[in-house]
Amino acid sequence: MDYVNGPGRNHLFVPGPVNIPDQVIRAMSRNNEDYRSPAIPALTKTLLEDVKKIFKTTTGTPFLIPTTGTGAWESVLTNTLSPGDRIVSFVIGQFSLLWVDQQQRLKFNVDVVESEWGRGADLDILESKLASDSAHTIKAICIVHNETATGVTNNLAKVRQLLDAYQHPALLLVDGVSSICALDFRMDEWGVDVAITGSQKALSLPTGIGFVVASPKAIEASKSAKSLRVFFDWSDYLKFYKMGTYWPYTPSIQLLYGLRAALDLIFEEGLENIIARHNRLGTATRLAVEAWGLKNCTQEEEWFSDTVTAVVVPPYIDGAEIVRRAWKRFNLSLGLGLNKVAGKVFRIGHLGNLNELQLLGALAGVEMILKDVGYPVKLGSGVAAASAYLQNNIPLIPSRI
Amino acid sequence: MDYVNGPGRNHLFVPGPVNIPDQVIRAMSRNNEDYRSPAIPALTKTLLEDVKKIFKTTTGTPFLIPTTGTGAWESVLTNTLSPGDRIVSFVIGQFSLLWVDQQQRLKFNVDVVESEWGRGADLDILESKLASDSAHTIKAICIVHNETATGVTNNLAKVRQLLDAYQHPALLLVDGVSSICALDFRMDEWGVDVAITGSQKALSLPTGIGFVVASPKAIEASKSAKSLRVFFDWSDYLKFYKMGTYWPYTPSIQLLYGLRAALDLIFEEGLENIIARHNRLGTATRLAVEAWGLKNCTQEEEWFSDTVTAVVVPPYIDGAEIVRRAWKRFNLSLGLGLNKVAGKVFRIGHLGNLNELQLLGALAGVEMILKDVGYPVKLGSGVAAASAYLQNNIPLIPSRI
Amino acid sequence: MDYVNGPGRNHLFVPGPVNIPDQVIRAMSRNNEDYRSPAIPALTKTLLEDVKKIFKTTTGTPFLIPTTGTGAWESVLTNTLSPGDRIVSFVIGQFSLLWVDQQQRLKFNVDVVESEWGRGADLDILESKLASDSAHTIKAICIVHNETATGVTNNLAKVRQLLDAYQHPALLLVDGVSSICALDFRMDEWGVDVAITGSQKALSLPTGIGFVVASPKAIEASKSAKSLRVFFDWSDYLKFYKMGTYWPYTPSIQLLYGLRAALDLIFEEGLENIIARHNRLGTATRLAVEAWGLKNCTQEEEWFSDTVTAVVVPPYIDGAEIVRRAWKRFNLSLGLGLNKVAGKVFRIGHLGNLNELQLLGALAGVEMILKDVGYPVKLGSGVAAASAYLQNNIPLIPSRI
Amino acid sequence: MDYVNGPGRNHLFVPGPVNIPDQVIRAMSRNNEDYRSPAIPALTKTLLEDVKKIFKTTTGTPFLIPTTGTGAWESVLTNTLSPGDRIVSFVIGQFSLLWVDQQQRLKFNVDVVESEWGRGADLDILESKLASDSAHTIKAICIVHNETATGVTNNLAKVRQLLDAYQHPALLLVDGVSSICALDFRMDEWGVDVAITGSQKALSLPTGIGFVVASPKAIEASKSAKSLRVFFDWSDYLKFYKMGTYWPYTPSIQLLYGLRAALDLIFEEGLENIIARHNRLGTATRLAVEAWGLKNCTQEEEWFSDTVTAVVVPPYIDGAEIVRRAWKRFNLSLGLGLNKVAGKVFRIGHLGNLNELQLLGALAGVEMILKDVGYPVKLGSGVAAASAYLQNNIPLIPSRI
Repeated sequence: MDYVNGPGRNHLFVPGPVNIPDQVIRAMSRNNEDYRSPAIPALTKTLLEDVKKIFKTTTGTPFLIPTTGTGAWESVLTNTLSPGDRIVSFVIGQFSLLWVDQQQRLKFNVDVVESEWGRGADLDILESKLASDSAHTIKAICIVHNETATGVTNNLAKVRQLLDAYQHPALLLVDGVSSICALDFRMDEWGVDVAITGSQKALSLPTGIGFVVASPKAIEASKSAKSLRVFFDWSDYLKFYKMGTYWPYTPSIQLLYGLRAALDLIFEEGLENIIARHNRLGTATRLAVEAWGLKNCTQEEEWFSDTVTAVVVPPYIDGAEIVRRAWKRFNLSLGLGLNKVAGKVFRIGHLGNLNELQLLGALAGVEMILKDVGYPVKLGSGVAAASAYLQNNIPLIPSRI
Repeated sequence: MDYVNGPGRNHLFVPGPVNIPDQVIRAMSRNNEDYRSPAIPALTKTLLEDVKKIFKTTTGTPFLIPTTGTGAWESVLTNTLSPGDRIVSFVIGQFSLLWVDQQQRLKFNVDVVESEWGRGADLDILESKLASDSAHTIKAICIVHNETATGVTNNLAKVRQLLDAYQHPALLLVDGVSSICALDFRMDEWGVDVAITGSQKALSLPTGIGFVVASPKAIEASKSAKSLRVFFDWSDYLKFYKMGTYWPYTPSIQLLYGLRAALDLIFEEGLENIIARHNRLGTATRLAVEAWGLKNCTQEEEWFSDTVTAVVVPPYIDGAEIVRRAWKRFNLSLGLGLNKVAGKVFRIGHLGNLNELQLLGALAGVEMILKDVGYPVKLGSGVAAASAYLQNNIPLIPSRI
Repeated sequence: MDYVNGPGRNHLFVPGPVNIPDQVIRAMSRNNEDYRSPAIPALTKTLLEDVKKIFKTTTGTPFLIPTTGTGAWESVLTNTLSPGDRIVSFVIGQFSLLWVDQQQRLKFNVDVVESEWGRGADLDILESKLASDSAHTIKAICIVHNETATGVTNNLAKVRQLLDAYQHPALLLVDGVSSICALDFRMDEWGVDVAITGSQKALSLPTGIGFVVASPKAIEASKSAKSLRVFFDWSDYLKFYKMGTYWPYTPSIQLLYGLRAALDLIFEEGLENIIARHNRLGTATRLAVEAWGLKNCTQEEEWFSDTVTAVVVPPYIDGAEIVRRAWKRFNLSLGLGLNKVAGKVFRIGHLGNLNELQLLGALAGVEMILKDVGYPVKLGSGVAAASAYLQNNIPLIPSRI
Repeated sequence: MDYVNGPGRNHLFVPGPVNIPDQVIRAMSRNNEDYRSPAIPALTKTLLEDVKKIFKTTTGTPFLIPTTGTGAWESVLTNTLSPGDRIVSFVIGQFSLLWVDQQQRLKFNVDVVESEWGRGADLDILESKLASDSAHTIKAICIVHNETATGVTNNLAKVRQLLDAYQHPALLLVDGVSSICALDFRMDEWGVDVAITGSQKALSLPTGIGFVVASPKAIEASKSAKSLRVFFDWSDYLKFYKMGTYWPYTPSIQLLYGLRAALDLIFEEGLENIIARHNRLGTATRLAVEAWGLKNCTQEEEWFSDTVTAVVVPPYIDGAEIVRRAWKRFNLSLGLGLNKVAGKVFRIGHLGNLNELQLLGALAGVEMILKDVGYPVKLGSGVAAASAYLQNNIPLIPSRI
């Protein structure tokens, strides 16, 4: 079914699913195994311990659920909340919008705070809501750390400060899908109650594991949450954790070994080095966009995302045409603009297992496509701007010094 | 993390996850791709069409949900039923028990029909319930086609006959997890409304896809079902089917290509040939058990399962010890007895990508283990009995004639 | 042993071994098989037929020898010549030099024609030798089609013209290691008597098959050639060809399936499209070198190579340092200068399974390295020059139109 | 090209190529790399050190030549001998015959000692030749440790004793292709001067590396040996060993990583445990053959081979038909009888990455085939005899205790 082959490699620059390291592909290339043998629990134990490090938590409880990010969202909500509970939720782009849609369909009382797409969550409004909620009717704050549709990173530390300032007990529920393991994320320090990510994002695995990590407070909340749930119910996991067999239902053997390999690579590179690398990739991309004379969809520097850049195209150009040509002519996969920004932006994902020369090849491709579609770009200009920065900032590869 | 290596191959005879064909492992050994490129919808289209053939339906609508069998169960229930709905459900072993547990936790009114473990669903009781339900308070019949814990195959055709005889409109919801693609299953002919299986069973893939196929009547029911659901909601799929992009959230690229390869192999072998092969494997196993002087947990021939055999051990032997020794000494993975039959049986899974010599090797291993644990087996006796049958019944491999 | 990991992909731009398509890696990821079963001869038959197409011959006999290019050379010489035979051989770089070394050690009477490194074979001298050899003491002309050390492509059509002009019966023995399947090569049309390549070059496989294709005249010569040989002896292959079992000794099962996949991809892309793609890659590289203000080691346009470019560095820069930094800092693999041009050049291989954006990423990397080592390059300049050409010349990917 | 698929696994019981461990297949599933980067020499260094352990030598020099066993033979001969040199060589089956053929074609003066096929090398004749060779005209003794065609293991320790007894300086050149890493082999202790094996035999890799290990005396001999050679010339390797770059021409990157994984598995299992496992597999096979009432081609117990058993069939049965049916009906690959024993025997290879239950499955298959072709075997008899032995002798898997 590889009927759309092009010569050479596909340049994968959508903001997920991302490039998988060869070591991980190899680790996953295997037969099934009995998940009730002693081997799988022993492996799982190491995974759970190590996933906590990626979330920067020592007190959280991780659940590796065979699902996607959408399922992980549902796990967060149904385990901690009861139908009718008031939650404050921010819409700043397509993915936060979809989460709000889920929250509403699950019959929570969603207090939606909207921002213009391209701006971050409006924390002033959050503050006013907290200030006026001395009755603590707000049970949870739901926030996307990094909105993948617009390339906007919200300030979670600030959210925690506000909750603390008002001594508000609301749970802090975070979608870290396109941030965790790429952006600076600190579960314990920021008092996040549940955080999630998906295997196909910065962890650089195939889709299939929804990572959900719950604080002790969230675990406590799950004991009284009345939302119906079975597949997503943490209590089944906790029961099997206690028994030491870990899995209430069949996990993907391949993803477990793949996750082991992915974590080994992450720790070998170093989480802080990974975050720094994403900052280099994000900065380089933004410098190229600027050199092309185009605008970043993200309106203020404080919200710049190091994992995805949404580039605003002039009105006379269709962003979708850029994505189509990228794939048809250059074997380059870019992200479409979604919903309100459909056609108005195209997106460059720069997260996961990726290095600078890969990005520069993609930026060179974008330049040619921009010219293809009639934008008067100076070929080489974006690459030059990005390279000028990168040449000063790329470190030696530690294992090769 | 392969710290429990043994020389040679692992002999995988648990009733799932099962052996994956090398062609499928190869097809899955790949990087991620943009699932919004034209390639993935084109691939998906072929998969949906071909999955219907495996279920023997032309009118059903398939959903390939990134989940396990447990999630697929939840999808069946929440899309077709409303809390409080009366359903008739049979408990004949651990997996039907777990499904009933799920039904109860999802707040349906479950009318449980229990059988002794080792016997099939009590269809006489079903008949009496249908006979006395002229008001049609029963909204659905939930039945496991093949109970994996005891090796019992229920008679679905008979269930349909009863429903028809009483002109009862209840939905027929079937767990085909350890049957579909191995046992004779006929969705349309038997008027099954929703049937499910999991990728790691007879389809011989890794865990990760819950296959749910819904009849037009079930789709209709989903429009008024009031159970809350988002991740498992068919309506999101149907919306994306209409748009031609197919996926409401990120699928596993690897599993899609793996499924394509698996389906190609299935059609190459032929579904009827596969069912016949499973019958040979099941028959051979039962002949060996008989030769060993042991009892099949399945009490009557009408319920014999061709995908898994639960073997009753004498009271002085612990079934779990057999499983432990199999793994520790012979690199053979057998299934434990679960719940009511824990310790009393061990299980031989014989489904999926498996041939007769693989089975005979495993049976030879079981004989040695039986001797190890003090059962006075005549070594070679089971293999002799199985071989006598197989030597007369194995066909030539068609591609090699 | 992956102790030198860098994040993201290795950018492999040595002139061999080259990038292997994922489809080929997958096809090779398999267990051994009995090479005496009917499956392997059936597969081999298709391979031999298709390899002839790559060499553009209908009358040649291909031998797929489990060896490297060096072994393939030896096969060419020992099967067609006898010790003491006079051969004319050209030295224009390190690989032609090594072949001459082999010729001398195998005790042929080698009439060496040397050129300055960076220039092609001196065909005027060849002409004078042919003109004065009415006695036909010259038994063979040995020539490298593309000298990998200097990036020089020789004019084989011209060699044939000279032989024809003087009606000289010398065998024309061609090293096509870094040309065949990337550059225009025409075995039959040019009257090449034996041509070779290696699997790890433009065919984009792992090392392990030396492809040797012999004309009927070469096969005839092999019957009287007195050089001792067993492993490389064509007669053993011919005996097994006649029997239909093909292999005098064990082939690599993996490479056979890999070759099948590689050939399928080649025919899908189209051999002429592949040659055109290499011309684009070579042209783009040369434009970048020019934009950087550096010199191509190849002195005249007529010899420009579309598979490898040797770039001359200024005297104050060590070419080896460029290669070292490329690997240590940018995960980019470039080729060293060898022997006479050691330190004076670095090489960019641009052959095999490679597309334009991959090349542009590498060129962007070279620019940064040049700046690293003190060369006053304008960052982006090479990429801009290459892009200006490529943007006008890259076709749509046929399978995606 | 997998057009001869059967369901389930192929049962590979030819005496090479053998089953590759999944870990090795995974390790090899990778792109090419620059073999001149620092990574490959670092890897190679560990390989050369560890290969010596497999050969049980501390003073030998290993060469990993990109070739097959036939090429390795040629490397042994051409590096240590000069045309016309007298060598004593034993023919006891097809592979020793082929080696003698090579020796003759390379123009050595071969003093052939023949045995009936099924018997070992006639060491009495060797003794008489040594006794009468006070002039030391014999330059080398060439002997196959394990003749793969007949399943005969020669007594190398005895050969050494004879050479020592007569203080004869002849080189001892050993083909260990189907012995090393499976049978007891002691290069230093037995004073072997050159020993070889192939990657596709007990090391359980794909074909592609000819392992040649030379004693200091053999290295010394190579300095004056006059046989022409280039590709197989040890001196090129020694030159690159000295430079620390190791490879005179391109190695297979994949096989190097595969060999690393294979060696890791070998040391994890333990070489002595591997030899013991092969003894169990050989003993079990011989017990089955006896139980079937058939004869082992190997005439005396002292020559029994633990890596391959050639089974003599009654005159009214064609051994080739057994092999054909095995493949066509049972997906079982057995070895044909070759040359003098063609049709008279079939062979069961039991070497490499293999465990006891795999063997028992194959033996069960052989029983059914024997019945197919009209031999009055009692089904289960061979498995019973083998199991009775194995049940007493298989140890626990150390990593799982």
